[in-house]
Amino acid sequence: MPHPSVIPLSGGLDSATVLAMARSAGFEPHALSLCYGQRHVSELDAAARVASTLGAVRHEIIDLDLRRFGSSALTDNALAVPTSGVSAPGEIPVTYVPARNTIMLSVALGLAEALGGRGIFFGANAVDYSGYPDCRPDYVRAFEAMANLATKAGVEGELITVHAPIIAMTKSEIIRTGAALGVDYAMTISCYQADPKSRACGRCESCRLRASGFADAGLPDPTCYR
Amino acid sequence: MPHPSVIPLSGGLDSATVLAMARSAGFEPHALSLCYGQRHVSELDAAARVASTLGAVRHEIIDLDLRRFGSSALTDNALAVPTSGVSAPGEIPVTYVPARNTIMLSVALGLAEALGGRGIFFGANAVDYSGYPDCRPDYVRAFEAMANLATKAGVEGELITVHAPIIAMTKSEIIRTGAALGVDYAMTISCYQADPKSRACGRCESCRLRASGFADAGLPDPTCYR
Repeated sequence: MPHPSVIPLSGGLDSATVLAMARSAGFEPHALSLCYGQRHVSELDAAARVASTLGAVRHEIIDLDLRRFGSSALTDNALAVPTSGVSAPGEIPVTYVPARNTIMLSVALGLAEALGGRGIFFGANAVDYSGYPDCRPDYVRAFEAMANLATKAGVEGELITVHAPIIAMTKSEIIRTGAALGVDYAMTISCYQADPKSRACGRCESCRLRASGFADAGLPDPTCYR
Repeated sequence: MPHPSVIPLSGGLDSATVLAMARSAGFEPHALSLCYGQRHVSELDAAARVASTLGAVRHEIIDLDLRRFGSSALTDNALAVPTSGVSAPGEIPVTYVPARNTIMLSVALGLAEALGGRGIFFGANAVDYSGYPDCRPDYVRAFEAMANLATKAGVEGELITVHAPIIAMTKSEIIRTGAALGVDYAMTISCYQADPKSRACGRCESCRLRASGFADAGLPDPTCYR
């Protein structure tokens, strides 16, 4: 029987690829999304499409409103999403949401342990990315170490593993990997400010990283732009 | 100006004591509680009383339903709360909620960073406790290490500190410390299955640890039993 594993699903292309990889590796994928008050809420529709199309056995959408904390352009409409430039090395952009990935992985950890699962597949990428601290390999290892001290599973020696299979890939490598596994990227949304019809702006950093990835992979970009 | 800090508040006596200690140490306390579908939901009323009485500048109650994951006697009414015996060393009781403290601390981390705060005051205790893995010093240090890799604050060198000032105290030491700071423990609830009128069962492990603490401290037990 395949082992249950939890895949945090944002609706973007990275986590969709990771779901396909987990399934292809023989894990039983349980998808989890966070409705945190993000500006780009249509990504949750995309996550639902990805979960159902790529064979997740369930898709939990957890409500946890981070708007009341503010301080990020993704949760506070008073802060604009930058539409030019890329993050300089060491610079963390205004689209960073305090502790969002940690909250997401913590909820994933709770679900994994409740399921009797020992694996989380995390779609972090530290190559073609926006410089968020909670996407780096050191962070992933530190979360995994903490998780094994936090849980009954870890204490009893059935170690929790946080898999981050695309963390060192370029965006084009991610796209080629997913395409080979049959992922239809038309159903994913990467834009930080997609409109209610799920159309991308084409200008935010996430849109630009995505477009370059398709160009570098030599594959047609299926993104629906507004 | 006092530094903002975040105090996860359960409504029990440990976190109330820690709030009083944080305030006494000169921090500006922001209280945070999790409404996670716990059986003992009246603890949230207790948390609100504690926050307002002990001078928290705000009290956020975050909804995050963990009942759908199940697997704990605190979130699944089909599992009974044990009313006799204490946890053997190394044994983790059925009242353990998978990753609950990690989820709580992660949300606290998000609030702390959004506030520009650098401290979390965590009411974990590893002496008179139920053997939960996510109450031990190694866990707290691992969470702190992860937090400093996860956040913009940590990366920029303004380190996040997870204070756990009662982790090595006995229950009676905690009670004496809080009493000296003016904490009225009548407003706190420790019971895992308090009734809707906030009356304690007197039989679960948490009730028994609390009652022993007051006895050992030589102080009257203000708990309202049913």
